[in-house]
Amino acid sequence: MKKRIYIYSPSGAVRDKVAFKRGVKRLNTLGYDVDVDNDALASSTRFAGDDSTRLAAIHRAAASGADVALISRGGYGLTRILQGIRYKTVAKAIERGTQFVGISDFTAFQLALFAKTGAETWAGPALCEGFGVGGEPDLVPDDIMEDCFEDLVSGQGEGTGWRQDKTPGAVEALNVHGAMVWGGNLTVLASMLGTPFFPEIKGGILFLEDIGEHPYRIERTLTQLLNAGVIGRQKAILLGQFTGYKLTPHDRGYKLQSVVDWLRGQTKVPVLTNLPYGHVQTKVLLPVGKKADLVVEGRDALLFWGH
Amino acid sequence: MKKRIYIYSPSGAVRDKVAFKRGVKRLNTLGYDVDVDNDALASSTRFAGDDSTRLAAIHRAAASGADVALISRGGYGLTRILQGIRYKTVAKAIERGTQFVGISDFTAFQLALFAKTGAETWAGPALCEGFGVGGEPDLVPDDIMEDCFEDLVSGQGEGTGWRQDKTPGAVEALNVHGAMVWGGNLTVLASMLGTPFFPEIKGGILFLEDIGEHPYRIERTLTQLLNAGVIGRQKAILLGQFTGYKLTPHDRGYKLQSVVDWLRGQTKVPVLTNLPYGHVQTKVLLPVGKKADLVVEGRDALLFWGH
Repeated sequence: MKKRIYIYSPSGAVRDKVAFKRGVKRLNTLGYDVDVDNDALASSTRFAGDDSTRLAAIHRAAASGADVALISRGGYGLTRILQGIRYKTVAKAIERGTQFVGISDFTAFQLALFAKTGAETWAGPALCEGFGVGGEPDLVPDDIMEDCFEDLVSGQGEGTGWRQDKTPGAVEALNVHGAMVWGGNLTVLASMLGTPFFPEIKGGILFLEDIGEHPYRIERTLTQLLNAGVIGRQKAILLGQFTGYKLTPHDRGYKLQSVVDWLRGQTKVPVLTNLPYGHVQTKVLLPVGKKADLVVEGRDALLFWGH
Repeated sequence: MKKRIYIYSPSGAVRDKVAFKRGVKRLNTLGYDVDVDNDALASSTRFAGDDSTRLAAIHRAAASGADVALISRGGYGLTRILQGIRYKTVAKAIERGTQFVGISDFTAFQLALFAKTGAETWAGPALCEGFGVGGEPDLVPDDIMEDCFEDLVSGQGEGTGWRQDKTPGAVEALNVHGAMVWGGNLTVLASMLGTPFFPEIKGGILFLEDIGEHPYRIERTLTQLLNAGVIGRQKAILLGQFTGYKLTPHDRGYKLQSVVDWLRGQTKVPVLTNLPYGHVQTKVLLPVGKKADLVVEGRDALLFWGH
């Protein structure tokens, strides 16, 4: 029986309807049935419908019985409706076998859900930027992303491996067993600090990515996590892809690597780099709220959560 | 005897040395003696010297015995050295009569100092963007800002009045007595939430401003303050000037006023607008950590802290 993907829009309005359609078609080509939520293309100012519309869409996704509930796109819109989400309803849908997958603004949903219920979700693609890319010959959905997605849908996913950046201070050996994996978009994650929607996770593996944030802003936000004790409580920090920012003449050599070096100077917690996750085409799927092992040997890192 | 202003650089490197010199000259013209810290023009990548250089500058400002310790400019650099500031030393300097004045990144210093010691500082101009503007005939330091600064230096400042925006939902009557005034740059303030440097202030008057943040980001950050209970614990929120952002076609009518309307819908705390404070020329000086009365009659608002 074909696996079923439910597409809904909890955040920003979908403007690129060509990408949306292309994404649905691609999922069909990959052998999935696709259900599109009635309000997936709704629009109210910058949002995919007003707050109650987007809340209803989330709850329909939970009631869909699909194998995967996949967001159409990120943007902004979840933090302002966190109070209205029926977390237990969503957690029950997950227990019944619906996997929730998304990225970026979706981090707010994932962390709040975990904080309220301990339910597990997945950081991964969104429909439009993941499966809907195209229009140019060399711009097609990424193999690795699609393979990871299929692994999740089929229940075959066991973990992910990658090569760290080769820089002084890189972590060359590490063995962490049974640590809670969590994280997502750095700015969204930090924008929940101090609220009841921020999960208190000790001894975890925290992964982070961001887009369009200058390194000084990344550093300021990491400093908040440091000063709040969040980083110090983890077994490892996995830095994913930080993209889409512009350095300026004022920086005079200050760059993303400066931030990594600085972070390593502030904490004894191992800081790994180059995790293939973020606002990039080639990305893996990562659990939020699942225990995993982490092994580093030289530049090679392996995050393993078994079946 | 002439009042003495001590200029130092705790945050970003000063690149516009013409503005810096013009600012010093302007302060002289206004009748102040000016001491310039030895490292006021230091530069290390984007910072005004490395972390220990900037920490030493702060502590020299505290030891200067000047009437006002004024930052050269904002930027970024304070959040990452908050752990190294000797707060009691600074608080003692304030007790002895040195007023600390600054804006933007300086919010981090002000809030941390208040959290650690309860000492009072002032949100106001920085040297370069306040007293150092010029080069064009109509670009001169702002009268109101300079008058407010002189009021502070001379101990004559009693408060500030302004006219709120005329919009539906505006607060038309309010009478708050003896409430703690605090606040500053919204993004910097929120970047301290969840850390020991964030002051726990109940029943206060919280003022906020920001620059270069799209309204959706302002809203996301306000949502963090809402969900953290910070806004609900205040007697009033004073929104200053939010400037330097660009709306996009994707916004479809979503704008700064949408954020104000939304905030008012989320809280019973009165939200006032148009406070003359922020990254603008015409701005008042506001205390951080001083009790004041707040009276609103129609569009007119008056914040009064007496002598």
